[in-house]
Amino acid sequence: MPGIFWVVPIAGVITIIFAIFLARNVLKRPMGTPKMKEIGDIIFQAAWAFLKRQYTTIAIYSVAIAVIIGVLVGVLGGTEVEGLSPLDIGWRTGVSFLVGALCSGVAGFIGMYIAVKSNARCAAAAQKSLTEAVNVALRGGAVSGFLITALSLIGVTVIFFAYGGATNPQIAPHLIVGFGFGASFVALFAQLGGGIYTKAADVGADLVGKIESGIPEDDPRNPAVIADLVGDNVGDCAGRGADLFESTAAENIGAMILGIAAYVATGNIAWILFPLCVRGFGMIASMIGIFFVRAKENENAMSALNRGYFVAIALSVVGLAVTVYFMLDNWWLFGAGVIGIAASVVIVFVTQYYTEWRYKPVRSIAEASKTGPATNIIMGTAVGFETTLATALVIGISLLLSFWMGDMSGVHGAFGTAVATMGMLMTCPYVLSMDTFGPITDNANGINEMAGAGPEVRKVTDRLDAVGNTTKALTKGYAMVSAGLAAFLLFQAYLDRVSFIKYGESGLYSIVNIARIEVFVGALLAVMIVYLFSSWAIKAVGKTASKIIEEVRRQFRADPGILAGTSKPDYARAVDITTRAGLREMIAPGLLVVLGPIIIGVVFRFIPGYDAAMAVAAVLMVGTIGGIMMASFMNNGGGAWDNAKKMIEDGQLKDDEGKVIVKGSFTHQAAVVGDTVGDPLKDTAGPSLHVLVKLLATITLVMCPLFIIV
Amino acid sequence: MPGIFWVVPIAGVITIIFAIFLARNVLKRPMGTPKMKEIGDIIFQAAWAFLKRQYTTIAIYSVAIAVIIGVLVGVLGGTEVEGLSPLDIGWRTGVSFLVGALCSGVAGFIGMYIAVKSNARCAAAAQKSLTEAVNVALRGGAVSGFLITALSLIGVTVIFFAYGGATNPQIAPHLIVGFGFGASFVALFAQLGGGIYTKAADVGADLVGKIESGIPEDDPRNPAVIADLVGDNVGDCAGRGADLFESTAAENIGAMILGIAAYVATGNIAWILFPLCVRGFGMIASMIGIFFVRAKENENAMSALNRGYFVAIALSVVGLAVTVYFMLDNWWLFGAGVIGIAASVVIVFVTQYYTEWRYKPVRSIAEASKTGPATNIIMGTAVGFETTLATALVIGISLLLSFWMGDMSGVHGAFGTAVATMGMLMTCPYVLSMDTFGPITDNANGINEMAGAGPEVRKVTDRLDAVGNTTKALTKGYAMVSAGLAAFLLFQAYLDRVSFIKYGESGLYSIVNIARIEVFVGALLAVMIVYLFSSWAIKAVGKTASKIIEEVRRQFRADPGILAGTSKPDYARAVDITTRAGLREMIAPGLLVVLGPIIIGVVFRFIPGYDAAMAVAAVLMVGTIGGIMMASFMNNGGGAWDNAKKMIEDGQLKDDEGKVIVKGSFTHQAAVVGDTVGDPLKDTAGPSLHVLVKLLATITLVMCPLFIIV
Repeated sequence: MPGIFWVVPIAGVITIIFAIFLARNVLKRPMGTPKMKEIGDIIFQAAWAFLKRQYTTIAIYSVAIAVIIGVLVGVLGGTEVEGLSPLDIGWRTGVSFLVGALCSGVAGFIGMYIAVKSNARCAAAAQKSLTEAVNVALRGGAVSGFLITALSLIGVTVIFFAYGGATNPQIAPHLIVGFGFGASFVALFAQLGGGIYTKAADVGADLVGKIESGIPEDDPRNPAVIADLVGDNVGDCAGRGADLFESTAAENIGAMILGIAAYVATGNIAWILFPLCVRGFGMIASMIGIFFVRAKENENAMSALNRGYFVAIALSVVGLAVTVYFMLDNWWLFGAGVIGIAASVVIVFVTQYYTEWRYKPVRSIAEASKTGPATNIIMGTAVGFETTLATALVIGISLLLSFWMGDMSGVHGAFGTAVATMGMLMTCPYVLSMDTFGPITDNANGINEMAGAGPEVRKVTDRLDAVGNTTKALTKGYAMVSAGLAAFLLFQAYLDRVSFIKYGESGLYSIVNIARIEVFVGALLAVMIVYLFSSWAIKAVGKTASKIIEEVRRQFRADPGILAGTSKPDYARAVDITTRAGLREMIAPGLLVVLGPIIIGVVFRFIPGYDAAMAVAAVLMVGTIGGIMMASFMNNGGGAWDNAKKMIEDGQLKDDEGKVIVKGSFTHQAAVVGDTVGDPLKDTAGPSLHVLVKLLATITLVMCPLFIIV
Repeated sequence: MPGIFWVVPIAGVITIIFAIFLARNVLKRPMGTPKMKEIGDIIFQAAWAFLKRQYTTIAIYSVAIAVIIGVLVGVLGGTEVEGLSPLDIGWRTGVSFLVGALCSGVAGFIGMYIAVKSNARCAAAAQKSLTEAVNVALRGGAVSGFLITALSLIGVTVIFFAYGGATNPQIAPHLIVGFGFGASFVALFAQLGGGIYTKAADVGADLVGKIESGIPEDDPRNPAVIADLVGDNVGDCAGRGADLFESTAAENIGAMILGIAAYVATGNIAWILFPLCVRGFGMIASMIGIFFVRAKENENAMSALNRGYFVAIALSVVGLAVTVYFMLDNWWLFGAGVIGIAASVVIVFVTQYYTEWRYKPVRSIAEASKTGPATNIIMGTAVGFETTLATALVIGISLLLSFWMGDMSGVHGAFGTAVATMGMLMTCPYVLSMDTFGPITDNANGINEMAGAGPEVRKVTDRLDAVGNTTKALTKGYAMVSAGLAAFLLFQAYLDRVSFIKYGESGLYSIVNIARIEVFVGALLAVMIVYLFSSWAIKAVGKTASKIIEEVRRQFRADPGILAGTSKPDYARAVDITTRAGLREMIAPGLLVVLGPIIIGVVFRFIPGYDAAMAVAAVLMVGTIGGIMMASFMNNGGGAWDNAKKMIEDGQLKDDEGKVIVKGSFTHQAAVVGDTVGDPLKDTAGPSLHVLVKLLATITLVMCPLFIIV
């Protein structure tokens, strides 16, 4: 064991202490006026209730899937692999699946708990100063961000050693793939259920409130407002947390599998442990980055966050250099890691270009709103589609370069892409903290609106809310590109695993020939699954939003006092509608993604002459391409629509005669339609697609024994 | 030469005589009232002017590209192939490119000429009877449909023999690939320019007319109405015609290349000529089908069209059996052809399910309109995405089955998919006739509205217009699935050609390994190109529509007499805007598709260790998958949005209290927004994507010498 490996447990423990310290710091702060406390408590209870029900459902499915995996792999898994019978592999995979699922669930719960508790405290802090508000929001977000990555690192490490990593390191990574699958399984449902919840509430509340009744966003008279605020927490916090938990876990495991070949060749276990150490240094770099965020009162909060981010980036480069020096002493691989870090910086600028109103894309959407909602939607779709250019180039160039460096290093090209992915994910805890900053400030803004805080306070939280929108968009770009980078390493891990099962060693199964008919059809079906999944996800939002709208209209009709502000609306009804929809509607798309590749693989396995493992590889590879391009459209397009609307609301758009176009005008209403259409794309389907892509990878890794005729 | 080959020239000549007969029959009919004649003439002149300018631009680009191809292939084309120097291959490819481009242009011009001339005559016939109107519209459409397919067959046959097909049949198919490229090059620009023209005019006219000013569709007071009517002709007639011209040409050439291997093995030239003969029988079957269309006065015109279609289908099966019996005597291949024919029937039902208001998908969009434009768009997007399921299954299952039959036949699996494609395309002339039926009836309806025909007459053309919408949707489904089927055979033709150039014989280059980094990145870039192309196409429509709206608003402001009906609007201004936009905006997306694959191939060729030909193969294959899935979304989604609006206009949607929702209501306006958003998807980007997919195939076939290091 290389001495530097101790960075893993040390960083893990420090990170947890750091998170506990931050959590205590946030929790001891005041919650503001009794009114704010009351609203905060309502949000907390509703969010907690949803999460409990959601995770209960997920837990039931997880146990069922764990048993099915164990049995399938155990019974159909073919022959013995290095002394382990299929049955041995089966139960170990099932157990690691459950552990991965459990860790993901715990991470989601804790993160959400602190984030929700931070809402009212952030609102209260905004009454003191911007600096304080930024502190609360970032620290609350950081609890979630750091705990999630620490749990991922510790989970993978512990299960690796529990499955004999110390004595049999060339086998253990194959046994822990279930951990990644468990994590992505939970992530898919968490992101999907939360995404449906949040956008159904948001779309419903906005359409009936802003457009039909002309009341402001987050107005307490709107019966759907609490559901909307709850949604931000269960969708953005819990969902994204689970997403990145599994990203880091799956990428770690995939990279460890790729390291086996070098370990076998050199006998140096550093090749397998390297990804864990890089992650450890990344956590420390991110932690120090957080300390550098000190917002000045008159500064754009985004600048403060960026400062911390660039500190984290710089330290990550240093940490990477240290790890490479002590473990591999191969500077080509350092170069590959730097490519990944650079990709994470580039994507920040790309995302900002496409989603901030200072630049042409958002402006063109705002301009198109002048001729109505139809031209707004057409232009927004065009902008969203166009963003695939930047996404594909960033991913493509990073892959080509890091692969080349991997090749030059003498190890393997794919290991270069693995190191690039590690490099990119080093700052994951920091990015995740910024991301959770978003829903916290969003909620703080909502609470202030509902509690009737003064315009000065609202101005502070409004500004923070806008920053939160940007950080949320950035995280999506980051998650998307990291999914794209990780994809290639996960393919290679899949091929290595197939090779290992089929031939007993790596590297012999390396061709995925898409000119074969079953492989081509597999690829076709994979892209179809991406569309079908997206269809079901956004349809769920549309249907549920319609129900919310009907419910709100019903309440307004039944009691005119609600709109007058004299009687209180029945918030619980809307919460109940979205809760039930979120739980019910996540099932079908979730199962589509889990079962689709398995069915394709198993059907093709039993047709003579077909190479089912190869067809599944094409499902994975081409499905990844399809998923990432679609996610790029949805995330960036949705963000651009959102900010085109915000641009008009900020009074930044003028008509032909130079007059400022105001809120409530024809143009503004058209922009609201665009924003609403973008909502389920950017917050339900889009982020779920990142998880889908990685789930395809983990599911095929785990289930590949089923597709192989030895 | 097998005796049955005479069916090709005979069918060609008969078809041309048939088309001339139909054209004379249509042209000798009366044009109705002077007012109708006047409007018809205006439309004709504007359409003709646009087409002349459009094809002049295309001609200039074609000549330039022909020279570039000739030089590139001649200079960079590597070594000699069976006695032909690269220079020999280069100039022949350039010439066949020009011939293909010319044939496509001629087909487009003639088809459009008759179709436009049929408009006013169909409007006049509607004053007599439905039967007469159906006759005029179908015959006018058939001129275009039959001429196009005849020209494609004759063109391919003539150039095949001109390039030594009789003496050297294993070489000639390689020399005529330029014909297919020329055809698809023209088709892309024709479809794209026409598509931008028609939808910019349509969207602009509808938004400002129907929504802002509350005047009906095709109202003579709308300054954009003539541009709208012209657009139907240049987009739907000329564009779709060029699309299917190149489909049949490219598929013929690809299938001939695949037949070379069997010819070399058996010495029987029937393997190479088979596709031409099947096409000949298909033309005859389609011709007889046309005779069976006799609409009864009280019948749904769709039933009459379907009757003819099923006659054509049945006769195609017979013709296929005859060709197989005389030429190949291999009944597995007959089975493969029947699969293709069956696929063309299935897609009819699938398309109807997704785009007719009798079924759930369209109803769900209409329902979602009750809560506004945003939910309408969300639901329509979901429906459009969902249609990829049916499209992928039809294509995937047809491919797997026909490949299996090809395998069983002892020839090659891919030849089975080729025969399936031939089978599917046998009824192409009939389908194309039905398709052109659409814009003719659409225009007839418009002319009647503008000329102030009575409600009885309008009822006839309204009914025909609705039928035309269905036939247009069907053709798109047909074009899409045939593109999907043809794709696999074109891949194999590409691989065969690479193999031939690299090793001097077929079948040695057969692996496209997407697990290689440059191949994976190629695939990623291909899907990106699909998105980027779509983005630019719909953005062009959005931008131009905005200009139209501003122009119409300006005219209404400048002269209030226009809306009052006392002064005539300036139609020419709107025509001019769309004409210039159609010409200018088609360039960038067109060049993207033409240059994209070449650049990828050439760049990768010069990087050591990369297999550029393989990367380009992945561009072709995965780009095809991405393009077909996107087209499925756009075509079907657009059709569903259109018909959801029509359903409401027909008074088929009721509110919660059971009252019929009327035109002009909030719900109807929301549905109009959806229809407008769907317009550029289903009539600009979607149909252009079919061409894009096939252009990818022909361009890579032609340019592959550039990517190969021999």
